[in-house]
Amino acid sequence: MPADDLRTFFEPSGVVLVGARRNLGFGYGIPIILEAHGWKDRIYLVNPSGGELHGLPVYPTVAEVPDPVDLAVVLTPAPVVPKMLEEIGERGIRHVVIESAGFAEVGESGTALQVESAAIARRYGMRVIGPNCVGLVNTANSFSTVEIIDEAFVPGPTSIIAQSGVFGNCLLDLLHEFRLYVSKAVTLGDRMDVNECDVLDYLKDDPETGSIMMYLEGAADGARLKETLAEVTRIKPVMVLKSGRTPAGRAATVSHTGSLSGEDRLYEAVFTQTGTIRASNLEGLVEMARIFSTQPPPKGNRLGIVTGSGSLGVMATDTAVSYGLQVPALPETVAGKIREEAPGWMNVKNPLDVGPSWMFAKALTALLEEPDIDMVLAITIIPYSVFKDLYDKGLDGRGWFGDIAELKEAYPEKPLVICAVGHSDFVSHMAEVAGPKVPIYVSPEPAARALAAHYYYWTWREGSGEGGFRQCY
Amino acid sequence: MPADDLRTFFEPSGVVLVGARRNLGFGYGIPIILEAHGWKDRIYLVNPSGGELHGLPVYPTVAEVPDPVDLAVVLTPAPVVPKMLEEIGERGIRHVVIESAGFAEVGESGTALQVESAAIARRYGMRVIGPNCVGLVNTANSFSTVEIIDEAFVPGPTSIIAQSGVFGNCLLDLLHEFRLYVSKAVTLGDRMDVNECDVLDYLKDDPETGSIMMYLEGAADGARLKETLAEVTRIKPVMVLKSGRTPAGRAATVSHTGSLSGEDRLYEAVFTQTGTIRASNLEGLVEMARIFSTQPPPKGNRLGIVTGSGSLGVMATDTAVSYGLQVPALPETVAGKIREEAPGWMNVKNPLDVGPSWMFAKALTALLEEPDIDMVLAITIIPYSVFKDLYDKGLDGRGWFGDIAELKEAYPEKPLVICAVGHSDFVSHMAEVAGPKVPIYVSPEPAARALAAHYYYWTWREGSGEGGFRQCY
Repeated sequence: MPADDLRTFFEPSGVVLVGARRNLGFGYGIPIILEAHGWKDRIYLVNPSGGELHGLPVYPTVAEVPDPVDLAVVLTPAPVVPKMLEEIGERGIRHVVIESAGFAEVGESGTALQVESAAIARRYGMRVIGPNCVGLVNTANSFSTVEIIDEAFVPGPTSIIAQSGVFGNCLLDLLHEFRLYVSKAVTLGDRMDVNECDVLDYLKDDPETGSIMMYLEGAADGARLKETLAEVTRIKPVMVLKSGRTPAGRAATVSHTGSLSGEDRLYEAVFTQTGTIRASNLEGLVEMARIFSTQPPPKGNRLGIVTGSGSLGVMATDTAVSYGLQVPALPETVAGKIREEAPGWMNVKNPLDVGPSWMFAKALTALLEEPDIDMVLAITIIPYSVFKDLYDKGLDGRGWFGDIAELKEAYPEKPLVICAVGHSDFVSHMAEVAGPKVPIYVSPEPAARALAAHYYYWTWREGSGEGGFRQCY
Repeated sequence: MPADDLRTFFEPSGVVLVGARRNLGFGYGIPIILEAHGWKDRIYLVNPSGGELHGLPVYPTVAEVPDPVDLAVVLTPAPVVPKMLEEIGERGIRHVVIESAGFAEVGESGTALQVESAAIARRYGMRVIGPNCVGLVNTANSFSTVEIIDEAFVPGPTSIIAQSGVFGNCLLDLLHEFRLYVSKAVTLGDRMDVNECDVLDYLKDDPETGSIMMYLEGAADGARLKETLAEVTRIKPVMVLKSGRTPAGRAATVSHTGSLSGEDRLYEAVFTQTGTIRASNLEGLVEMARIFSTQPPPKGNRLGIVTGSGSLGVMATDTAVSYGLQVPALPETVAGKIREEAPGWMNVKNPLDVGPSWMFAKALTALLEEPDIDMVLAITIIPYSVFKDLYDKGLDGRGWFGDIAELKEAYPEKPLVICAVGHSDFVSHMAEVAGPKVPIYVSPEPAARALAAHYYYWTWREGSGEGGFRQCY
């Protein structure tokens, strides 16, 4: 099936919501959100009770819905779904999102219902996302079958594939807080038809998608997943959080999205062989995605670290080296510049601990312009009481650490991340100083780990880093 | 040297600040903070220029400082320190904190200065904390030689030993945001005299210290560290973040606090043999400390999980099992209670995914009262747009997930932690619902890992869990 066959899911002309509900609960807010984002004239509600809802007419049957309508979103209880699919098929609609739960994930009776529904869909030549999901989001045209907040509609370069609905939904609630903005998000649920490979194929050619975050419990088709990933990762980074790593975890997935997740080492092999970057946990996935969505490919693995705390420099070094980066001796050109002004107590090394000197900005600039340093981690730290004193006297983070956003503009081709440790007000302030193009982390380890994942992917893609790297970040 | 010898550091009768500075910068705020916390009549400033500062008289020499004064805090440039130590010794003061940098951490000349200073200190029978540190905090009497914020003075059961000054200081800036409150904090710096073992010995017998967090780059004395830890961990949990895990990281520590950190596997062996809980990174250390400071010992390792998202339940299970916990089949008594009211789509298992049903509170209560479940992880999640709708209509997190703080009161003897995934406003709200006695995490993995560390420690301490656990959390 051509990947382009999914386009209507993301760019429908008109949408019918089958089973639009009148009381609070799952799915209630979908028409409200669509109306608020400019879809009022292109959404149609269906509910046997008719009447009106959210200021829109409610059609008793799908047959009565006027044109244009090429996508159906089903919210009814599971037992009614087959009947609704017939109505949808008769109406000539070929793209359906089934959000209703109660299918393969609940055992025998649900599986029977899913088989029956799939047969109907096939008969009508339908593509189906779900059941047991929350559908999808496309920020480019502000289309969403998910009840998300306004901030999640801000367009960005990251696309998401999540097997689970609620989880995908809540991911969209929090990513904007990490300044991670989304192009498309799809939740797959029980995968009656559309699976992660279909979506990967689609996103591969989607010009608005720069990189892909995926949450997977088990592959719909292991061989195809391997094939698909091998193709996609040559064009775009794919980051995956694969759960069901342990037998107990796998047992839990069976009852969740009705998938059999298989031995973890098989997945590990697939990810390793296809250059897919695996996150070890939810935080890791988000940490990496922030670098992939903002930083250019590094030219090598030589990391320069400037820090206001020796300890945090040591922690960053430990992590960076453990994950395959180098923290080389400070290049002599940089060392020379620093020594000119360094106080006696400063050790001019890499990691470069500038302590309470005023040399942070100078050191950061020197590392950014040094050709023998491939990526830079700047660890900003200052006791909060000192920060407040200085801030009140007109000296902000730019004064202490340099205008980091401006430095990024000046050296756009070198990956730069910052870490700000301490009080949340200090961290927020530093996020402003860093600007939207420099990811900020609240401790050094995740920053170093994410940089290592970034390096791993790009060397793999250029064919020079097949081995020697950790596969789980 | 008896541990009690350190008492004056924490409970001085009067304090002289040698080298009190007149302009903004390191140490400037110390007299201001001490004055604000009731120490105005017990602090004395010394600076050759005399006059007045912060509304206090400035004495030109230590000799002129009136009684009572039994602790000196030295803030002068390093080269002046030996002379100041002589003045302090002559004045009869036997406890000294040297915050000045420029000693062993900067190489040969600094080492010579440190040797010279140590000789003077020994001659006068002084105990010295530092140099190259920020001294200490005691929340019980609001005493601090560190410029910390008011929130960091809130007393709590956790004490801190940090080799690094700035890092220790900034840790105090952020811990209160995790509702982690401190009894005592000591930063060690270059350890001219007082080292981590001295402080461990002191904290072991300190009635206000419940558990100890330690950041270490290298042991001052490996054999003594092992001996000391073996004693302390039989009485109080000790959590350690040991950096310098890699050769590159170790190379960086040499220049930082002048310590030789040695092979990591030696430390690993010491921690394993003494039941010391090792954190793999800064986040891990904080995550664990939150459980140790609030939760009772578990009776076993059988974890019950209730969740609003199947995916997060699977992730929690993977982590829990990887770190040595069990996620057993749901006990029949619990399953029976749930089945009574469960909708058809619900899988009554452990982890128990209650989905969008109203059964979260009921399930959580059933797990808490079940004797065959030893600890409980409650994963609260709800799409933020739905949460806002319900909240506006008067239904808050207590309505959805139960009054968690009240449940903790009702079942105080079972470890309970919660996880809230999504928008930060939702997380903040759930932190209120959880109350001060239930730690809240923003993703399932750290919660499960911290529970595993908690279990590890208590079984080790009771002598039943010598092997079979991971040593790094």
